[in-house]
Amino acid sequence: MSENIIRTNASNGITIRIKFNRSPHTLGRMTARVGELQGNIGAIDIVEATAEYIVRDFSIDTGGEEHATQIVEAIAEIEGLEIVNYSDRTFLLHLGGKIEVKSKTPLKTRDQLSMAYTPGVARICMAIHERPEDAFKLTIKRNMVAIVSDGTAVLGLGDIGPEAAMPVMEGKAMLFKEFAGVDAFPICLRTTDVEELIKTIKYLEPTFGGVNLEDISAPRCFEIERRLKEEMNIPIFHDDQHGTAVVFIAALINALKVVKKEAKDLKVVVVGVGAAGTACTKMMMKLGVLNVIGCDRSGALHKGRTGLNEAKQEFMELTNPNQESGSIKQVMRGADVFVGLSGPNLLDESDIMGMNERAIVFAMSNPTPEVPPEIAAKHAMVVATGRSDYPNQINNVLCFPGIFRGALDCFASDINEEMKMAAARAIASVIDDDALSPDYIIPSVFDQKVVPAVAKAVMEAAVASGVARRSVKGSI
Amino acid sequence: MSENIIRTNASNGITIRIKFNRSPHTLGRMTARVGELQGNIGAIDIVEATAEYIVRDFSIDTGGEEHATQIVEAIAEIEGLEIVNYSDRTFLLHLGGKIEVKSKTPLKTRDQLSMAYTPGVARICMAIHERPEDAFKLTIKRNMVAIVSDGTAVLGLGDIGPEAAMPVMEGKAMLFKEFAGVDAFPICLRTTDVEELIKTIKYLEPTFGGVNLEDISAPRCFEIERRLKEEMNIPIFHDDQHGTAVVFIAALINALKVVKKEAKDLKVVVVGVGAAGTACTKMMMKLGVLNVIGCDRSGALHKGRTGLNEAKQEFMELTNPNQESGSIKQVMRGADVFVGLSGPNLLDESDIMGMNERAIVFAMSNPTPEVPPEIAAKHAMVVATGRSDYPNQINNVLCFPGIFRGALDCFASDINEEMKMAAARAIASVIDDDALSPDYIIPSVFDQKVVPAVAKAVMEAAVASGVARRSVKGSI
Repeated sequence: MSENIIRTNASNGITIRIKFNRSPHTLGRMTARVGELQGNIGAIDIVEATAEYIVRDFSIDTGGEEHATQIVEAIAEIEGLEIVNYSDRTFLLHLGGKIEVKSKTPLKTRDQLSMAYTPGVARICMAIHERPEDAFKLTIKRNMVAIVSDGTAVLGLGDIGPEAAMPVMEGKAMLFKEFAGVDAFPICLRTTDVEELIKTIKYLEPTFGGVNLEDISAPRCFEIERRLKEEMNIPIFHDDQHGTAVVFIAALINALKVVKKEAKDLKVVVVGVGAAGTACTKMMMKLGVLNVIGCDRSGALHKGRTGLNEAKQEFMELTNPNQESGSIKQVMRGADVFVGLSGPNLLDESDIMGMNERAIVFAMSNPTPEVPPEIAAKHAMVVATGRSDYPNQINNVLCFPGIFRGALDCFASDINEEMKMAAARAIASVIDDDALSPDYIIPSVFDQKVVPAVAKAVMEAAVASGVARRSVKGSI
Repeated sequence: MSENIIRTNASNGITIRIKFNRSPHTLGRMTARVGELQGNIGAIDIVEATAEYIVRDFSIDTGGEEHATQIVEAIAEIEGLEIVNYSDRTFLLHLGGKIEVKSKTPLKTRDQLSMAYTPGVARICMAIHERPEDAFKLTIKRNMVAIVSDGTAVLGLGDIGPEAAMPVMEGKAMLFKEFAGVDAFPICLRTTDVEELIKTIKYLEPTFGGVNLEDISAPRCFEIERRLKEEMNIPIFHDDQHGTAVVFIAALINALKVVKKEAKDLKVVVVGVGAAGTACTKMMMKLGVLNVIGCDRSGALHKGRTGLNEAKQEFMELTNPNQESGSIKQVMRGADVFVGLSGPNLLDESDIMGMNERAIVFAMSNPTPEVPPEIAAKHAMVVATGRSDYPNQINNVLCFPGIFRGALDCFASDINEEMKMAAARAIASVIDDDALSPDYIIPSVFDQKVVPAVAKAVMEAAVASGVARRSVKGSI
């Protein structure tokens, strides 16, 4: 019997089909054995039953592939049953891909064909030819976002290439549709050349109403986003930078209420000054934070550091007003806020103890935070992570569906700073002040108030900042 | 009252909402007036009814925008009613685009999220990273075709640009899905440069299982298709060339049975030697036709012609074994088959009269054929057009859904000559020999036997010619 507690998860679930003899004891022996091994049995369905045998499907959440194998092998040894087959539920779900392209209207009769295709479609084509802006009304551009990646910085997996990045982009397309009714299509490109990526995405503009850049490595992503924003007429949004930053700022706004501190008084240490760290820092400064110290693995970024790349140099020049130097651990002393966007287990308990009173810790490295949240919570007042199994999950899903919903609905030409800040404030506002607590600074990803609030705020900000291309009547 | 007969069509349909007083005569006066003007009333729905008034929606097919306006104005003059609003049904159908991207599975719970997105998706990404060919199983590549156009040769409308081409490509995506369950996504590119188009389409390869090129002008389309076939590992199919050719060949196979002639004995005149004309000619020669004479506006292509572009030069060298020269009308004398892929009203009755006995006329210019089909039918035994309102419609919809269904299902790396000819023979075979007649040489686009027959034949040809990348069990 296993001594350690195994964390099981549906993402490591298996479905196993078992043929039992009619002995009344076999099922009990099997489920008991799975329980001993800490497999978590969910649905049990009968597939076939005869006088001689009964076939059942079991869904079992496991702790990973090794644990799953262990469970299957243990079941196989039990007398009176036979494993018909078993499959990994996550692989099963991915078979053939996760999204499909569907007609909005049927195409069963000649009349329907003549309206949706030739000859009727020719009148629509000519209307757009005469008024190109009608593409926003009469084609999928109205509601279609391209999710574009080159596969160079996928999740925490790194440069795994465009084919291997597809399942993430498909998942993102599902989230767009399910959370905000936005149609989104994954485009994984077989080039990592910055100029080629820029050109290719520009060529795609007639088809799409917006572009969500995804999992493109830093610092290439900065140049790509900047150029596309300048050279295209539809909103460009690099979610790894701005989605993270918007949700982080929403959480920070609420965390500051909980700890009763103001932005201007904070000392903030940001560890990891890549795409997300830079965007979080820029938005914090817009929020009024004056003292941000960025760190890479060599410690604080300050004027005395040499050999910094262009992005880090720019970051350094905007931050660290007191020119603090030293290791991460050294500059952490007295900090009010820790913002981790780096790697696992960088800090230990003493680092959190050394922070200012009523400290806030954002340990967003995934899946393993910069400091174990249980440890951080002993000394910090508010702790947030990127994980769904701890309180205060910083999850981009809170941002990108609503932000594109708002941008598309007012035909925005851009997603600008005003719109991002409006989105952050809208996410924060979903939790009433009297409901805020150290364990509840950010709404759940399943909170249905989030997307409408974000979309409305984003549209209003788009109109106010002059990037909306149609007037907005009421809210969505 | 109008003297001419107006051809009404659903593609020119309007929906008009009318508020009637309660006089029993008003509805009759209104419908009678629409009838006088030859408007074709379809559905009539009650929207609201009170003691004082009744509101009804009418669907009325018209002959075009001018005719629609005439009808609406005439209704407005009738006493006792008021037009609430009216709309063009085809525009209405296009609002917001015609296709959407949907999740295949729900995403309502944390467990579903953890399998379709993080953390579960990471295991799928790594599986593809380790075995790139698994992209064909675990992503949308399994069933997803890119419909790519640059908008340079859209329908008969010409170079109207990528935005204006989108409604056609969306319509095509609907057809792929509705007829063959193939997911297809329209990509209209903002470049007309051959090298840029080739590069861009190559970059898209990780996302798609096939590419359907569409409405790209000749001769650019030849080079683009040739290069992509050489340089990519998924099937490339330029529908304007090969879709038309496959369906034409299917119809020719059956037409030859009807007129009891053999391919090797035919004299064929092809007018219009662009993308489709060239592909039709190549397939005819594969079918055994020896004497094809190509014509452009200046007449027959023969060795004495000067100033031919590269494509026409190549065409000329392969054809016209007797080196006939002269105008289209001159070389038409004694022809067994006329293949028109050019423009309206090129021929008159005397040209058809001068053909060989039991002549076959393919007048495929759209919407106005090279010769009025009624006139051609007086002298030719078999007449086919591109139109749905005459017998024997040569419509690409008979080909492309099934050909991609077959290619995707065996992970084909190409759609080669063998597969195209197999598709043509499969389409032809859907009509039993004893059902063939001069008016029935090609199945209806709604004949549900077509797609399975084509897909099966295409898969078998892919396996036999060595381009299938997985074995095929049974038919689809």
